[in-house]
Amino acid sequence: MRLTDFLPIFGWLKTYSRNDFHGDLFAGAITAILLVPQGIAYALLAGIPPELGLYASILPPVLYALFGTSRTLSVGPVSVAAVMIASAVNAPEISALQQPVQSAVILAAETGVLMLLMALLRLGGLVNFISHPVLTGFTSGASILIVFSQLPPLLGLAKLPCVGSLSCYTDTVRTANTATLITGFGAVLLLILFGKPLTGLLKKTAIKPVWITAISKCGPLLTVALGATAVDLWDLDTAYQVATVGPIPAGLPGLRVDYAIDPVHWRLLLPYAALIALIAYVESVAIAKAIAHLKGEKIQPNHELLGLGAANIASALSGGMAVAGGFSRTMVNFSAGARTQMAMLMAAAFVALALMFFSPYFAAIPKTVLAAIILVAITPLIRLQNIVHTWRYDSSDGIAEGATLLGVLVLGIEEGITLGIILTLVSYLRITSHPHIAVVGRIRGTEHFRNIKRHDVKTWRHLLLLRVDENLTFANANYVEEFITDQLQRQPDIKHVVLIFASVSYIDSTALEVLEGLNDALKNLNILLHLAEAKGPVLDKLHKTDFFSHLHPGKVFFRTQDAINELV
Amino acid sequence: MRLTDFLPIFGWLKTYSRNDFHGDLFAGAITAILLVPQGIAYALLAGIPPELGLYASILPPVLYALFGTSRTLSVGPVSVAAVMIASAVNAPEISALQQPVQSAVILAAETGVLMLLMALLRLGGLVNFISHPVLTGFTSGASILIVFSQLPPLLGLAKLPCVGSLSCYTDTVRTANTATLITGFGAVLLLILFGKPLTGLLKKTAIKPVWITAISKCGPLLTVALGATAVDLWDLDTAYQVATVGPIPAGLPGLRVDYAIDPVHWRLLLPYAALIALIAYVESVAIAKAIAHLKGEKIQPNHELLGLGAANIASALSGGMAVAGGFSRTMVNFSAGARTQMAMLMAAAFVALALMFFSPYFAAIPKTVLAAIILVAITPLIRLQNIVHTWRYDSSDGIAEGATLLGVLVLGIEEGITLGIILTLVSYLRITSHPHIAVVGRIRGTEHFRNIKRHDVKTWRHLLLLRVDENLTFANANYVEEFITDQLQRQPDIKHVVLIFASVSYIDSTALEVLEGLNDALKNLNILLHLAEAKGPVLDKLHKTDFFSHLHPGKVFFRTQDAINELV
Repeated sequence: MRLTDFLPIFGWLKTYSRNDFHGDLFAGAITAILLVPQGIAYALLAGIPPELGLYASILPPVLYALFGTSRTLSVGPVSVAAVMIASAVNAPEISALQQPVQSAVILAAETGVLMLLMALLRLGGLVNFISHPVLTGFTSGASILIVFSQLPPLLGLAKLPCVGSLSCYTDTVRTANTATLITGFGAVLLLILFGKPLTGLLKKTAIKPVWITAISKCGPLLTVALGATAVDLWDLDTAYQVATVGPIPAGLPGLRVDYAIDPVHWRLLLPYAALIALIAYVESVAIAKAIAHLKGEKIQPNHELLGLGAANIASALSGGMAVAGGFSRTMVNFSAGARTQMAMLMAAAFVALALMFFSPYFAAIPKTVLAAIILVAITPLIRLQNIVHTWRYDSSDGIAEGATLLGVLVLGIEEGITLGIILTLVSYLRITSHPHIAVVGRIRGTEHFRNIKRHDVKTWRHLLLLRVDENLTFANANYVEEFITDQLQRQPDIKHVVLIFASVSYIDSTALEVLEGLNDALKNLNILLHLAEAKGPVLDKLHKTDFFSHLHPGKVFFRTQDAINELV
Repeated sequence: MRLTDFLPIFGWLKTYSRNDFHGDLFAGAITAILLVPQGIAYALLAGIPPELGLYASILPPVLYALFGTSRTLSVGPVSVAAVMIASAVNAPEISALQQPVQSAVILAAETGVLMLLMALLRLGGLVNFISHPVLTGFTSGASILIVFSQLPPLLGLAKLPCVGSLSCYTDTVRTANTATLITGFGAVLLLILFGKPLTGLLKKTAIKPVWITAISKCGPLLTVALGATAVDLWDLDTAYQVATVGPIPAGLPGLRVDYAIDPVHWRLLLPYAALIALIAYVESVAIAKAIAHLKGEKIQPNHELLGLGAANIASALSGGMAVAGGFSRTMVNFSAGARTQMAMLMAAAFVALALMFFSPYFAAIPKTVLAAIILVAITPLIRLQNIVHTWRYDSSDGIAEGATLLGVLVLGIEEGITLGIILTLVSYLRITSHPHIAVVGRIRGTEHFRNIKRHDVKTWRHLLLLRVDENLTFANANYVEEFITDQLQRQPDIKHVVLIFASVSYIDSTALEVLEGLNDALKNLNILLHLAEAKGPVLDKLHKTDFFSHLHPGKVFFRTQDAINELV
């Protein structure tokens, strides 16, 4: 194993040029401009002090840059992980401990340790447990939860007075803090204007595309700055009760491990950490892959676990929250011209500088502005119409997507994703337990055998030729057996059954026992079972057992045509 | 739907003959002789009063005869269900209710209701969740637990003094009740002699095989009778402290529903009932199928759920324990000449008569004799060497079997089977996430395409022909994508990738998105993606999406040869 296999950073550092640096410096600055307000906002979304989001934006990207395989993935605080952290911190058994900061830091540490364990056990394939429909349904559901969670800070309420009835809404509006509401909706408007309207306008000018990206991505920072200035100018916080972020400790976080002592606390958080690790990993790999596709690069799933695991442990050690690859930030980083992870190293440095020199200014940021930033960022992730889209293509996938979304909304974040995973597995097993089996015959004048339902083929009265189009396992062995016995009841003259194994690469022990049972049953009825076109590895495995002595005088034919030559 | 489809009993009643009746009457009598001691013994094994086992032997077979599809399956109390009932009744939250009889009856009712629900939802395919290795491992583990649970009654102890150290065994022998120990080991010896030694001897005489079966199956009844007589003769119970069954209420059970009131009790028992329903169903179907194979008959899994569900509800209504098809009893019924379920109706009638007229005699049966009956019946189900056998054929199946067995022993009955099911699913997903993919070329002088690794084939520098041998789903889409990108890195001259879909019958929405992503990625690299030999249903489904407009100018070829003609 070479050094660059373990530390991908050395892969690009060797050939790193001044040109690369210019691109990365610019992209890093833009990403940092996004990272500071996002870090504060996502920490508040998670229900923890804002500095935990900022701390999570410094060391984690550095560690990911060392170990991760994506060159543009922006690792840091993300909304979905934040809402999962909120769910954990607010769970009765954990909120009873009254240590939200410790809980968040331990969650990050556990998430990291679990990811490293998964990397060690080479469980990168776990990504296969979560299908796209389930992931989309989960993201939509979590985003809806986030939108509702942001209404109170946006409107200046302690919490929503109630949900559902019409009087609720009028009550909500009546009890809302007018100054907060105006600030919040002003921020929403400004953020929306900085999106498509502004970029549309700028595209008509001679400004270079990277600069258009840069300018439009300054929206959140500008909104935050305007909000803080308004608070300072008109004393919105004291005179009008507009809630602000409040003091953030100045300077960089110290490395500390004193949170990590209470084993009970760790055990309570373990199930939450496991789901955060799974979702953070799956989402990050999906984003990293999407970008890698655009650049013709390659992502190594097991290595991503290493990078993300190291990033989360680094976050915990520096007192930050759990991190993952963020979709919008990564797209910004990419379109601002990032060439390597150097861009994220730059971004981390800018965040560190901001913490060291500008943290006094953060105190005056109105919470309603942060809620506005979250709302505008999260709304596009609610993709309800996608359920219909998925359902039209594949109804069981559509049901899984809808059920996951409903599960998240009705049962909760963790329960929703668990439901989705279970549904995926059950429907998968349901589908694979009905493999495609074709009764085949010979196309006249050839040695080619095709489905009797679709082609005009020759068949023989005493001969049943069956092609099984899937591996034989516990999941489908019973179905295959029933299919054969059904066929035999319909065709009482059959004396030979030939199973064509051209598509069978694997037979598990359940299927082997079913085949043996079937063979005995057929012998009782004076019918012989044969195999044809079985592959080498399958035959090798069967030779380890006494299958062939049971099969005898049934035979194994190399080609299906050989069976015809001998049995007709 | 015809009446016989719903009530299979009318299938055989129509043509029922006097000859059939003679066979069934004899087999019924023999099975009843086995059923009475088994009913009492399995109730004691479950930790509940003996009459619950006898009650479970009367109505349940009648209901199964009406609705079940197997003609010889003997439904009644079985050892594995009994030990699962014991595990439920002794669980802390349930034993705290101090209502073991109610718990057992509610378990039977819930098991029945769950089975009917499964029948209604046509979930007969759930049988596919439990592979043979897991079932074998579970049965071995449960049987070992049963053997250990029977040592105290066999030796006349309240419970085993301890486990593990050498002094334990000496202590156990010292504190054992000598009279009980002698009676118990006498019973074991007698039962063993009634097995192979006696049948071996009888086979050398002119006695008919059915009578040999009949005589050898009287072992348990004779042992019980001798034990009870010994207790009466020598006052073993009062003078020597040999524990006996004690008084059993005389007469038939009344139908009662008053147990079924407490919803909390039902909720607590639900997870146990779910696992009993699953195991009872899977074991019963396996036994029914094995016998049906011997006679060329057919079992309908969904209908079995109906029969077993009705039987369990009948058991609960008559105050009995949960029931299933029993392996040894079914084999006895079959080899004693049973032709239809009339045999089990006869057996049920005999058990009812026994309860009405002989129950005073049951009181004196020594518990140690019942423990001996269970031990002798259960020991052959411990198949440790089978793990090695399975492991040699397929290591992951062997691991699942061993882990399930260990799980049952170390973690408990329910945890063990759950572990087994999870392991099966994980290893299944692991295997199917690495589908067989072959790079193919054309066999010279033909239009036949085969694996380049195994055959001498012609290939083309700018053309990559890939045959995927499995359906494309979330479980394997990533692997397929990585396989293709790997191939492209090795062969930089490739301009066209042709995916041969001859074995692909299904593409789920995750795989569709991965294919679309791959197609976009390849276009970025100026490589075109094509399909060949795609089946009708697959094309129909893809036509519902905009896949083909993305694919364009990539094409769909009917045959692989068409791709060569056009692209070379």
